[in-house]
Amino acid sequence: MALATLIGMGTVGAFAAEGLEDVMKRRGLSQKDLLAAAKTYTPTGGRDEFLVFSSSGQAGQIMVYGIPSMRILKYVSVFTPEPWQGFGFDEESKKILRQGDIDGREINWGDTHHPALSETDGKPDGEYLFINDKANPRVGVVSLHDFETQQIVVNPILQSEHGGTFVTPNTEYVIEAAQYPGVLGRGYAPLSEFNEKFRGAVTYWKFDRSKGRIDPAKSFSLELPPYTQDLTDAGKGPSDGWSFTNSFCAERYVGGIEQGKPPFEAGCSANDADYLHVINWKKAAELVAAGKSVKINGHDVVPIKTAVEEGILFLIAEPKSPHGADVTPDGKYIIVGGKLDTNVSVYSWEKIKAAIDAKQYASKDPYGIPILDMKQVLHTQVQLGLGPLHTQFDSKPCIAYTSLYVDSQVAKYDYCAGKVLDKISVHYNIGHLMAMEGDSAAPGGHYLVALNKLAIDRFNPVGPLHPQNHQLIDISGDKMELLYDMPVPLGEPHYAASIAADKVKPLIRYKYGTDSRTGQASPDAVRPGSEKIVREPGKVTVYGTAIRSHFTPEIVEANEGDIVTFHITNAERAEDETHGFTVSTYSGNLSLEPGKTASVTFKADRPGAFSFYCTEFCSALHLEMEGYLMVKPKGLVEQTSTKATDSTVYTKADFDKQYTTNLETQKVIDTVVKYIMSTNYKDFPTVVALVEDAVDQLNFAKDAKGKTDEAAKKEDWQQGTLWANQWWQYQVKAADIGLRVKTYLEEHGAKTVAK
Amino acid sequence: MALATLIGMGTVGAFAAEGLEDVMKRRGLSQKDLLAAAKTYTPTGGRDEFLVFSSSGQAGQIMVYGIPSMRILKYVSVFTPEPWQGFGFDEESKKILRQGDIDGREINWGDTHHPALSETDGKPDGEYLFINDKANPRVGVVSLHDFETQQIVVNPILQSEHGGTFVTPNTEYVIEAAQYPGVLGRGYAPLSEFNEKFRGAVTYWKFDRSKGRIDPAKSFSLELPPYTQDLTDAGKGPSDGWSFTNSFCAERYVGGIEQGKPPFEAGCSANDADYLHVINWKKAAELVAAGKSVKINGHDVVPIKTAVEEGILFLIAEPKSPHGADVTPDGKYIIVGGKLDTNVSVYSWEKIKAAIDAKQYASKDPYGIPILDMKQVLHTQVQLGLGPLHTQFDSKPCIAYTSLYVDSQVAKYDYCAGKVLDKISVHYNIGHLMAMEGDSAAPGGHYLVALNKLAIDRFNPVGPLHPQNHQLIDISGDKMELLYDMPVPLGEPHYAASIAADKVKPLIRYKYGTDSRTGQASPDAVRPGSEKIVREPGKVTVYGTAIRSHFTPEIVEANEGDIVTFHITNAERAEDETHGFTVSTYSGNLSLEPGKTASVTFKADRPGAFSFYCTEFCSALHLEMEGYLMVKPKGLVEQTSTKATDSTVYTKADFDKQYTTNLETQKVIDTVVKYIMSTNYKDFPTVVALVEDAVDQLNFAKDAKGKTDEAAKKEDWQQGTLWANQWWQYQVKAADIGLRVKTYLEEHGAKTVAK
Repeated sequence: MALATLIGMGTVGAFAAEGLEDVMKRRGLSQKDLLAAAKTYTPTGGRDEFLVFSSSGQAGQIMVYGIPSMRILKYVSVFTPEPWQGFGFDEESKKILRQGDIDGREINWGDTHHPALSETDGKPDGEYLFINDKANPRVGVVSLHDFETQQIVVNPILQSEHGGTFVTPNTEYVIEAAQYPGVLGRGYAPLSEFNEKFRGAVTYWKFDRSKGRIDPAKSFSLELPPYTQDLTDAGKGPSDGWSFTNSFCAERYVGGIEQGKPPFEAGCSANDADYLHVINWKKAAELVAAGKSVKINGHDVVPIKTAVEEGILFLIAEPKSPHGADVTPDGKYIIVGGKLDTNVSVYSWEKIKAAIDAKQYASKDPYGIPILDMKQVLHTQVQLGLGPLHTQFDSKPCIAYTSLYVDSQVAKYDYCAGKVLDKISVHYNIGHLMAMEGDSAAPGGHYLVALNKLAIDRFNPVGPLHPQNHQLIDISGDKMELLYDMPVPLGEPHYAASIAADKVKPLIRYKYGTDSRTGQASPDAVRPGSEKIVREPGKVTVYGTAIRSHFTPEIVEANEGDIVTFHITNAERAEDETHGFTVSTYSGNLSLEPGKTASVTFKADRPGAFSFYCTEFCSALHLEMEGYLMVKPKGLVEQTSTKATDSTVYTKADFDKQYTTNLETQKVIDTVVKYIMSTNYKDFPTVVALVEDAVDQLNFAKDAKGKTDEAAKKEDWQQGTLWANQWWQYQVKAADIGLRVKTYLEEHGAKTVAK
Repeated sequence: MALATLIGMGTVGAFAAEGLEDVMKRRGLSQKDLLAAAKTYTPTGGRDEFLVFSSSGQAGQIMVYGIPSMRILKYVSVFTPEPWQGFGFDEESKKILRQGDIDGREINWGDTHHPALSETDGKPDGEYLFINDKANPRVGVVSLHDFETQQIVVNPILQSEHGGTFVTPNTEYVIEAAQYPGVLGRGYAPLSEFNEKFRGAVTYWKFDRSKGRIDPAKSFSLELPPYTQDLTDAGKGPSDGWSFTNSFCAERYVGGIEQGKPPFEAGCSANDADYLHVINWKKAAELVAAGKSVKINGHDVVPIKTAVEEGILFLIAEPKSPHGADVTPDGKYIIVGGKLDTNVSVYSWEKIKAAIDAKQYASKDPYGIPILDMKQVLHTQVQLGLGPLHTQFDSKPCIAYTSLYVDSQVAKYDYCAGKVLDKISVHYNIGHLMAMEGDSAAPGGHYLVALNKLAIDRFNPVGPLHPQNHQLIDISGDKMELLYDMPVPLGEPHYAASIAADKVKPLIRYKYGTDSRTGQASPDAVRPGSEKIVREPGKVTVYGTAIRSHFTPEIVEANEGDIVTFHITNAERAEDETHGFTVSTYSGNLSLEPGKTASVTFKADRPGAFSFYCTEFCSALHLEMEGYLMVKPKGLVEQTSTKATDSTVYTKADFDKQYTTNLETQKVIDTVVKYIMSTNYKDFPTVVALVEDAVDQLNFAKDAKGKTDEAAKKEDWQQGTLWANQWWQYQVKAADIGLRVKTYLEEHGAKTVAK
């Protein structure tokens, strides 16, 4: 390629106005910026290499974005009602939300922290996603088949958690650890009995992959001392069967600034070391199966005493106030950073296992748990800087990255040799970081994201509440290079999980009549032609359909005080023909993707004429996709017929005019069809699907033409004209699709094929 | 600049691994793509030229993004509770949400459609933003001083709306028009009386800029016929004082597919023309002032009859099923596109005014409203293509852009000369479009965004519910050029409003103790040192503060069944030191930006030890920013003291060790301070603010040192060690800020200054 061509100088017509060098000068871009732009910019229709599933913190959602484009593709609501998705606004999803209520309290938000992708052989498999709620100890399960939340489980014993979710290498269990100690079962004890009555715990939720659901009955917890447990990681390879949970505030300080004592922050960070908990979860599961657990709130809990007796629970000192216990891809080491220490500590699993097997303990904690000798089980410590927090791994052997909160840097180092290789400054305080599949058995390399907290001065100001900043870093070379700053517009992400994009293969559409929250056929689905309104005393139930651009039925009558239910099925086959549904002022909203059935129920508590309409811009006649719920006042005696007559009267001339238009329109459609058929359109799956959709529309048009002709035979120009117009509407929909196909074929270099 | 340097070839170390040409080849980028990348890529710390405020449709929020980077900066919740912002999760914002309840029904979502920025002289001024709710006829008011929703007003007479919001040139009124006709006041009438009893309307909400609130008492509506009113625009310049509202379904069809009739979409699009409503709102306001309105639900409504008699309401035919009535920047023309017509119609205000003044009417509608002769008042029609929908204007005179829904294109044309200049294909069906300040009296040119609906195939698949696609188009040259595809991750935007970024000047922080939802001082704010817990029978009220990294108080006792309230004030001065607050399982969440006071109230309905914590990652000791709400069981007789004692005991050796550490830490801090002072740091406002914050932290450290020394004097090594550690925590916070300053100064080329 000639350089002059490459940089767009010279005579290329399209950009004659402003060449590359002009643009760089105007926008103040350096050569380095241009390279970063080329590494991240994704032209229309382009695909990202990796998908990121990020927590959105207190927003209670999952944020999905692509790498390297750093474009946010979707927010998936997990714990917080969100009307665009219908989550919490249709009856089906309300059942999921209400699974998450705690002790009779309705909870409509979550403080999401650590998402985990389901794994097979220690590698993300793109099937499911789990995420915790720190504020209300719960775990949500999202299916990556449709990116919808399908389960929320409430932790039966914790009052606070943080260390979730993490999965075992084949997603046998989803791990959730306590944070602030409480009385297990959410009971009361005075703080004077903190040491005796307060406890931590780690819960192992059994995942049933065949059902895509957690099975609470087969899940269990391990009682832990009232150290403030933090993050966990599951062992893999040689350490498979074990899990590692760090902690802070091993001082067991209970605050009291209001009494003139120093605050928690002082008392919880006074000692040099906290404890890493080393747990044999495989054996714990066996103990539960053998009946060696106790029940708290009906949930199996292995007591500390049993765990100690059975040799499945150990402690190791770790530098003060750690966050993140990260197992290396080969399962041989566990890396822990202490936020108030300058080192990361690399523990050797081989040495830990040897010490455990030899019962070589340095001491015991106040609860009788054996403490291994830190020095004996350390592989090495690497001095990185101020505030080491969380570690991720590269595809290259022995290479790790650790975020440095106070230094606002990422350190790259060789954890085998204990040697720092590179550092890069980020903007500003970095919490977690995430490399591509960087916590898995086979990291993907290439990129790393710094999840920065305090985004002061990075973006245009948008008020006192700032966005966070996810910075994309290129880790493919020897030196880390900053590529992109992505503001986070909603929520405060803590951790994120990534996966090669081609592993995620979501549904195109639902099987006709699916309740997406159960994944099963909805009993309330109907096919077009079978719609019905069922009236019972005090109750009106509508079984309806939605298709471009009308609902069936359109007019629904109810009496004041009736319980009204609409079950609507989207009868579309086209990939993105989502419809919505709401009844004005009655507060439900359905998001109806093709094939989905969803429902809304409410009490028609006031008389009135309430319109319903499609809440998703679906077609040219979208605004006309409407109907009325007529709520008749109690005791109404209608003075006149409730049957409406047409306000506009059509004549034979109107009919003939529309009929002629339709025949002409058909000619245009025939031309487009002819063009499409002349190409190799069958080589483009997207186009094949669109053509199917267009054929559907033309069949609908044919049907409407039949009704038109029938009316004309009876010289009913009123119905004839209206049906002729409906026939034309279907033609417009077909033409719309045809034009999209044409654009697609032209832009994708379709070829003319011989007949 | 040498070309070889420009494209990063050769020996530049940092990118030796992969040069620009390599990257382009690997990623399949064309020269055109590279230019688009250079035009949009924004390096770290860079600013956008324009801010966009986009509706998020059924998500009930406002999405704010930057142009040209197309990075989403913030979602601002308007009608839907959102916990990250605390909206609907603190008591202050619940009051705003509950203003939006309709007829006694609690409504927790909205279907936002058309945002409007406050204007001065017809140009956006960056002060306020308004947006409508189509599902529940309401208008929300967002302050751009802090990007928070501060008011929701319920339309007193409509059951459905769509055509809002639009402002008059000096934001005298915010306009909201009906959509599906109803009985004004949300009453009942049978559909058989549709023509007689159903009505449309347009509401003019009076805006009081001094208060930043709509004044419902000074607002009024104009009754309109039961045509389905759609979008509006206010006149300006010569047409100031008038507004223009289009409509569809002038057929007044009432559906009935369930009775075998054709659906609404057929009956509502059968005629060739609908009606543009031409309204003299200034005179309407005078009529209301003169008592010529009637009251419906206590709201002033000017009846059709009065409007006709007074000569303030006229109709003009417009091509079928229009969407968008757009007044040109000079106020001389109104452009309307009919979605089922191939033309846009350019009406001349001069001709309309002349016809009105001369009382030259073509006919009257069934409600007696004069209909102007379309041909007489048309300036021209321009044939653009299939599905013309919405129009925006360029900074160049006579240049307009109209979206073509069915053709999936944007057309650029000269509306003065009636000539098409250019067309560009977008992906795919485009609804609204938005040029920079493109609906104002002085459009900004440069860019245009196509708000596309059906994003099939543009992005990595994320399940059956697809993102929408906002495509950025460069309009600075003769030919439109596609620059960027932005997926919309949440909601379905309809319309968006843009403004030059430098016009928006939000607050840095709140005045100490502000209730952000009223903008006034909160009566519940306290200063550090004045925190208190007030106990009344059945009630515990906490007046607390939050500052890195502790709450005051930390331990709060209550009895089972008490109503507990926490009022928390963020005592930080640092720009981005937001804290959060929640009590585990009790479901409130506060977002506490610096200076803000917010509150949460709940019934402590179950006994237990419930932790509370900071929900925003604020500092290295963020996880330690915790406390306990101790809810004592009813009738509890405590067996032991509730006063906790420290679990860890500290000796003089511990004390000495921490004291020595602190003195050493101070030396490091002194070095950083010395470096900062040696530079021209005062030239950087961001740094000056950070230095202020660091000085605050060092003063806190000094205070903690005082307490340390005092304890040491008493040989109280327990309190001494803990306070020494707190002193050290403040040092860490100061060091953290110092390091951020250092990075900033280094990256911004700070200079050494002579002493």
